[in-house]
Amino acid sequence: MTTVLATKIARDYGTPALVIDMDRVERNIARVQAACDAAGVANRPHIKTHKSPFLARLQRDAGAKGITCQKLGEAEVMVEGGLDDILISYNLLGDEKMQRLGALLQRASITVTADNPVVLSQLSQAADVAGRPVPVVIECDTGRKRAGVETPAEAIALAKAMTELKGVTFAGFMLYPTENGWPQAQRFFDEALAGVRALGLEPSIVSTGGSPNLKNLGQLKGATEHRPGTYIYNDRMQVDAGVAGWDDCALYVYATVVSRAGPDRGILDAGSKTLTSDTGGLDGHGLILEHPEAKIARFAEEHGFLDLTRSNTRPNVGDIVRIVPNHVCVVVNMVDEILMVRGDDIIGTLPVAARGKLR
Amino acid sequence: MTTVLATKIARDYGTPALVIDMDRVERNIARVQAACDAAGVANRPHIKTHKSPFLARLQRDAGAKGITCQKLGEAEVMVEGGLDDILISYNLLGDEKMQRLGALLQRASITVTADNPVVLSQLSQAADVAGRPVPVVIECDTGRKRAGVETPAEAIALAKAMTELKGVTFAGFMLYPTENGWPQAQRFFDEALAGVRALGLEPSIVSTGGSPNLKNLGQLKGATEHRPGTYIYNDRMQVDAGVAGWDDCALYVYATVVSRAGPDRGILDAGSKTLTSDTGGLDGHGLILEHPEAKIARFAEEHGFLDLTRSNTRPNVGDIVRIVPNHVCVVVNMVDEILMVRGDDIIGTLPVAARGKLR
Repeated sequence: MTTVLATKIARDYGTPALVIDMDRVERNIARVQAACDAAGVANRPHIKTHKSPFLARLQRDAGAKGITCQKLGEAEVMVEGGLDDILISYNLLGDEKMQRLGALLQRASITVTADNPVVLSQLSQAADVAGRPVPVVIECDTGRKRAGVETPAEAIALAKAMTELKGVTFAGFMLYPTENGWPQAQRFFDEALAGVRALGLEPSIVSTGGSPNLKNLGQLKGATEHRPGTYIYNDRMQVDAGVAGWDDCALYVYATVVSRAGPDRGILDAGSKTLTSDTGGLDGHGLILEHPEAKIARFAEEHGFLDLTRSNTRPNVGDIVRIVPNHVCVVVNMVDEILMVRGDDIIGTLPVAARGKLR
Repeated sequence: MTTVLATKIARDYGTPALVIDMDRVERNIARVQAACDAAGVANRPHIKTHKSPFLARLQRDAGAKGITCQKLGEAEVMVEGGLDDILISYNLLGDEKMQRLGALLQRASITVTADNPVVLSQLSQAADVAGRPVPVVIECDTGRKRAGVETPAEAIALAKAMTELKGVTFAGFMLYPTENGWPQAQRFFDEALAGVRALGLEPSIVSTGGSPNLKNLGQLKGATEHRPGTYIYNDRMQVDAGVAGWDDCALYVYATVVSRAGPDRGILDAGSKTLTSDTGGLDGHGLILEHPEAKIARFAEEHGFLDLTRSNTRPNVGDIVRIVPNHVCVVVNMVDEILMVRGDDIIGTLPVAARGKLR
């Protein structure tokens, strides 16, 4: 059950291959932009998912206010690719990074985050290099236990520190509420907002995040923007979260069945070095469109081991299958380029230009 | 508690960074070569761990008979880098790969594996391109439930098929016994060997595999070679398997503490896009040398979240720590280059030349 397109891909490029359907990509970009417009918040897509200036420009041209990067190296690639108005949603630290941040600030509008005073004080160095202050949003953790200050009081103290420190300016708040934690995020934000206003500060950016949170878009009163990432491709996690259907999944991993290795087993040429071991909290490592009952049960580095005990159909050695990965962002990060298709036509290759920018 | 070397690395390169100690690399290469020599089996190191022709040449110059690759793309990089006598321990399939395999066979001595007749019949195509037959070893699964024929009878049937098929020649057997399954592997091999001898065939390669199996080196009567990979760097899994000590771990991930985010927590700038979600079956995602009681409990893509509840010491924001990863092979696969050090000196950068060779 190998499709016409799969046959072309295997013949001209070989498997495993990451393939994006550009019709779906464009539809996903338009749909989420329209949702942001309707909710009255700006769209600042996170490019960690695609790492491509070409796709970031499509997002911008569709109406995105700016973009989000997680690494300085990603931001450098994006500025090189013509993007501007970039939020680096990360605590940057270290002399080497301050030099680079300072240089980048001379070329583009960059905002960074901080959740502690050590990061703040380092940012002064970047300001010295840039010859102008660094705008900083305060990252607030409203329940995920990831990065971010844990209380409004800490947020207010950081904002106050910014008023006393040369080279940084208070730009606002960044939040990443849990999917059911938006009321909690609102209370946190309201208290922090009152506190900074008492200091004479006003946030210009109040940023919420996450593709799974698209269902909560606009729920935070005072939010100015949202940072969705995964929506451009979608994946099994987004379908599981209820924010995308299978037809919204724009990226498939094409893989070949290279061995059956027993009646209830099968082996794909996509292992942990292609699909990654990140399960995203789901059972199995991806949905095989041709064999939805098959489970990608475990991996070797270049092998995906199928459990076919619950499958009504068995693939043959040589079959090419399409896999919707669990977590598309980490899968894209494994490759240097992706194939672009429309319908049954391969229309080109897309460099994952910011991949490998470890720092 | 940031070391002198860590300070240099952060200043000149930034974190996260993958760093190898070349004294340890050379010691690991020499130690395993000596063990193979003592056991009377050739050494055919698997380059999937380092993906570097430079290091493969060090292994060859220390006495390795040849190398093992898992992908055609890896083998192409190695041939380009001056290596020869390569076993591609993988079922290769598809027209595009057969063209490339044929071309490679014209440049170097290449052996491939097969565990099913579909793969065998495809290899004839490569032989047509090369103008000479393809040597094939039969992959045998003696208990791991990975790739490989499951019975000696299947192995013998495949060997017989080779005698009837133009373009392939029987080269021997490849096994990857479980750590306690060497008696079982011996029975499998003995029966398969008797069967192929009855066909008038004699294996020139009988290859066993795995760094954790170094403790079983030479245990298979009739084995001609072993394929260890991870031993060049070692990792937490190898220490856990009892084949390496912490002082044999030659690769560290240097990471910066970018946030504390609560009294019993900490955040590193190394997440699932650096350390990968591959736990290797261990608890936590690596050993932090400076804080061995700290647990790298979970990841975001660019964040490693520390659980410090059992730690006697707490890192400060800005500290640079050294991490021994759980499974070094998949971590190396994330980066384009690695820093090489001796003692406290950074002596150069090493391209991970065969990284990203997805096919």
